Amino acid sequence: MPTALEQLRLRLADVHALHNAITVLDWDQQTYMPEGGSESRAEHTSCLSRMAHELFVDDKTKSLIDAASPETDIDQAELRVIKRRFDLATKFPASLVAEKSRLSSIAHNEWVAARASNNFKSFVPTLSRMFEIAREEAELLGYTDHIYDALLDQYEEGSTAADCRRMFDALKAEQAPLILAIKELPEVDDSWLYGEWDIPTQRKFTETIVKEIGFDFERGRQDEAPHPFCTTFGVGDVRLTTRYKPYLGSAIFGSLHEAGHGMYEQGSPASFDRTFLQGGVSLGLHESQSRTWENLVGRSREFWSIFLPKLQQAFPVLANKDLDTFYRGINKVEPSLIRVEADEMTYNMHVLIRFEIECDVLTGALEVKDMPEAWNAKYQQYLGITPPNDAQGCLQDVHWSMGSIGYFPTYSMGNVLSYQIWNAMEKEIGNVHELMAKGDFATIHGWLRENMYQHGCRYAPKELVLKLTGKPLDPTDYLTGITAKYRAIYGL
Amino acid sequence: MPTALEQLRLRLADVHALHNAITVLDWDQQTYMPEGGSESRAEHTSCLSRMAHELFVDDKTKSLIDAASPETDIDQAELRVIKRRFDLATKFPASLVAEKSRLSSIAHNEWVAARASNNFKSFVPTLSRMFEIAREEAELLGYTDHIYDALLDQYEEGSTAADCRRMFDALKAEQAPLILAIKELPEVDDSWLYGEWDIPTQRKFTETIVKEIGFDFERGRQDEAPHPFCTTFGVGDVRLTTRYKPYLGSAIFGSLHEAGHGMYEQGSPASFDRTFLQGGVSLGLHESQSRTWENLVGRSREFWSIFLPKLQQAFPVLANKDLDTFYRGINKVEPSLIRVEADEMTYNMHVLIRFEIECDVLTGALEVKDMPEAWNAKYQQYLGITPPNDAQGCLQDVHWSMGSIGYFPTYSMGNVLSYQIWNAMEKEIGNVHELMAKGDFATIHGWLRENMYQHGCRYAPKELVLKLTGKPLDPTDYLTGITAKYRAIYGL
Repeated sequence: MPTALEQLRLRLADVHALHNAITVLDWDQQTYMPEGGSESRAEHTSCLSRMAHELFVDDKTKSLIDAASPETDIDQAELRVIKRRFDLATKFPASLVAEKSRLSSIAHNEWVAARASNNFKSFVPTLSRMFEIAREEAELLGYTDHIYDALLDQYEEGSTAADCRRMFDALKAEQAPLILAIKELPEVDDSWLYGEWDIPTQRKFTETIVKEIGFDFERGRQDEAPHPFCTTFGVGDVRLTTRYKPYLGSAIFGSLHEAGHGMYEQGSPASFDRTFLQGGVSLGLHESQSRTWENLVGRSREFWSIFLPKLQQAFPVLANKDLDTFYRGINKVEPSLIRVEADEMTYNMHVLIRFEIECDVLTGALEVKDMPEAWNAKYQQYLGITPPNDAQGCLQDVHWSMGSIGYFPTYSMGNVLSYQIWNAMEKEIGNVHELMAKGDFATIHGWLRENMYQHGCRYAPKELVLKLTGKPLDPTDYLTGITAKYRAIYGL
Repeated sequence: MPTALEQLRLRLADVHALHNAITVLDWDQQTYMPEGGSESRAEHTSCLSRMAHELFVDDKTKSLIDAASPETDIDQAELRVIKRRFDLATKFPASLVAEKSRLSSIAHNEWVAARASNNFKSFVPTLSRMFEIAREEAELLGYTDHIYDALLDQYEEGSTAADCRRMFDALKAEQAPLILAIKELPEVDDSWLYGEWDIPTQRKFTETIVKEIGFDFERGRQDEAPHPFCTTFGVGDVRLTTRYKPYLGSAIFGSLHEAGHGMYEQGSPASFDRTFLQGGVSLGLHESQSRTWENLVGRSREFWSIFLPKLQQAFPVLANKDLDTFYRGINKVEPSLIRVEADEMTYNMHVLIRFEIECDVLTGALEVKDMPEAWNAKYQQYLGITPPNDAQGCLQDVHWSMGSIGYFPTYSMGNVLSYQIWNAMEKEIGNVHELMAKGDFATIHGWLRENMYQHGCRYAPKELVLKLTGKPLDPTDYLTGITAKYRAIYGL
């Protein structure tokens, strides 16, 4: 007779199979699916999602969870994660889930139209309802201090609005003035990073660097997608995507970014495969790894001391760029309107603006209809620029139309944690820049795998940060690192 | 209150979603999946298959089928197909299905090992059990005349061993002597079709010809796979695969063959999408279309009068080949040991040998252990050659190890039907060779779509053949056509 925990795992195997299928269907949709497939794909995905949800939230799952008695630490961790996911999945009544799903699809179309015609007003009623739903969700999830806490916890377990505010206060105090100071300096010329770059050559080069830093192509691959992402079909099958644009950095840094996510996913032990313990534990910690490999490694002088000659072989037009010019070019800071195109330095400002606006709308301090003015004032304040229209302003992101409210801060947490974890690593393995200059990425990858990746979802995010770095999330390392880097580049 | 038929459709929507997911997972496995993904993929696919089966064979499906009252002809056709599928899915007890599934996976490994070591004897016990299971299945399915009828009906509804024997008797009477006569003639030189052909150029050329004959790339695509196949995710999303080999014909004729399957699938009306009426109605009729576009179109002189100049542009090394040399080269007849490499002329002989052996083993006239002798004698008789070992003889096909017994004849039915349907078409649209010489494939495709593809599974296979050609399956058209073609090529 199998134990309750074994029965629970058997039941969840079906849920996993359904989620896996949805993940593969979604990957295919974003990479290879012809246009004609979209209608059927939507129907199939929606059927499978409903089946997975129904199977998971069934009373039988609940009674097995209650009856399960974990024997090992790993069992205990697994059960904890299952319980949390079950609780999250059962908090919302079916009617609210259905309304949100219907509204999302309407909102998406309305958002596309509003952005195309630069007409925010037309989107106000639907967006207002979406924020109301977020409020209802927060009440159902429950919170002690701030309504935002409930929403954020879904993406970053245990993190709160107070955590975010502390972090953002520190970031804006140091970053905003530095950005404004850089804005006054002569612009760095990176026009030579724009051109017509042969796609197969870009593909080959990005696959090479991604492999060199440690992404395992026997347990993964890289494809092309309009919006790059990383997705996991299992410990043995992690898919990256990248995109090929006139800006050569799109493919290079896109690939490195997704490979960071991918290496975190590949780092789970095989025994976690097809369990809730597989993969990265939270959005913030996931982002810390994509940013580590994209920025701390991929935008370092040492990395390019190894790879610039190879890039120049691939694209001889770059032969006349020396390391210093190249390094300055790829690290150009330029306050811009669009978050997804932001550089390493300005990115957090975009995120903090969204966080502040979300908080204000959720608490009622700001009405949705007044969002454009609030948005534009903040862009002027933190980045010194004002959007010429709402399409390039508060209508730029898809997320709110999908009801994804409360997760933007995890991007900045990722930035902050990337430096915090990096510094903890340096204390143990010595000067990481020297390792990179020798082309030794294996030691870095090895430390991260050993201390972080191999734990999958075993520890809650805050617990893992403490275990890894000896302290809670703290922007000091990030601010010290980033200001030193950019002061040096800009001679400030 | 939805009608019983509407409820049935709703229930089957979930079954379709699961089958669709399995199909996508399988396509991905054969095209893009990294090696590390195989273990998880097998687990997930097996979970989804079980779920789909359980959902389909549930008593609730049965009671909805019984209660459904079709209103239109289409409803009636749909219900007929659902009933047939339900009957097939419920004929076998779970224990037999489980045993076959277990045995298949053992048999596959044993077959691989037996072929590698050329040791048929080691495979005899397992293969014997697989044929016993086929016998048990046949008894459960039921039949009137011949045990083979029950098995064949699963793949080709309504066809019988007697139909096959009639067909094969006619084929071997005319084809075997002609093949032996050609064998005595000097060998055609097609060595110039072997070489190192740039893969992106092959990809582009095959996509061009496949598009020119009518495959719709807005509702489909072509990828690469070790064993080419066509698969359907919906009317709007049909996937072809091809392969790139030293023999240039592999990609070209592989692509045309799969495009034939693909155009049949794309031809279903959108209203059949996600119903049991979508797609080709039987293996034989499906194969008739792959063979039409591969052979009747793709190996015709007229087709190459259009495309040889384009192929020569793509591969200038072929510039010195005139149309006649090219045409003879791609139509070279050469009795060979391996079915999957057989030319248009000899292919049926390979199939008939398998059919005769399957019948004899099923009726007890032949024991599995004596298969190699029977196999070799037939190869000598029909093709004038004897396999040097069993690896190149009766161990060459994967099918029996999977328990796929009773479907080989559908390949020859496809060949025969391709000519039979072609001649029926010619009676209506005039000289098809003249159309092809003008590059007009749209008229051919249009007639086939109108008269065949758009019916999907609406008519049973035998009914469709009668409707299309005015007579049942009849090898006359095929034999007249094929012997005329090859007598002309070989000057006989």
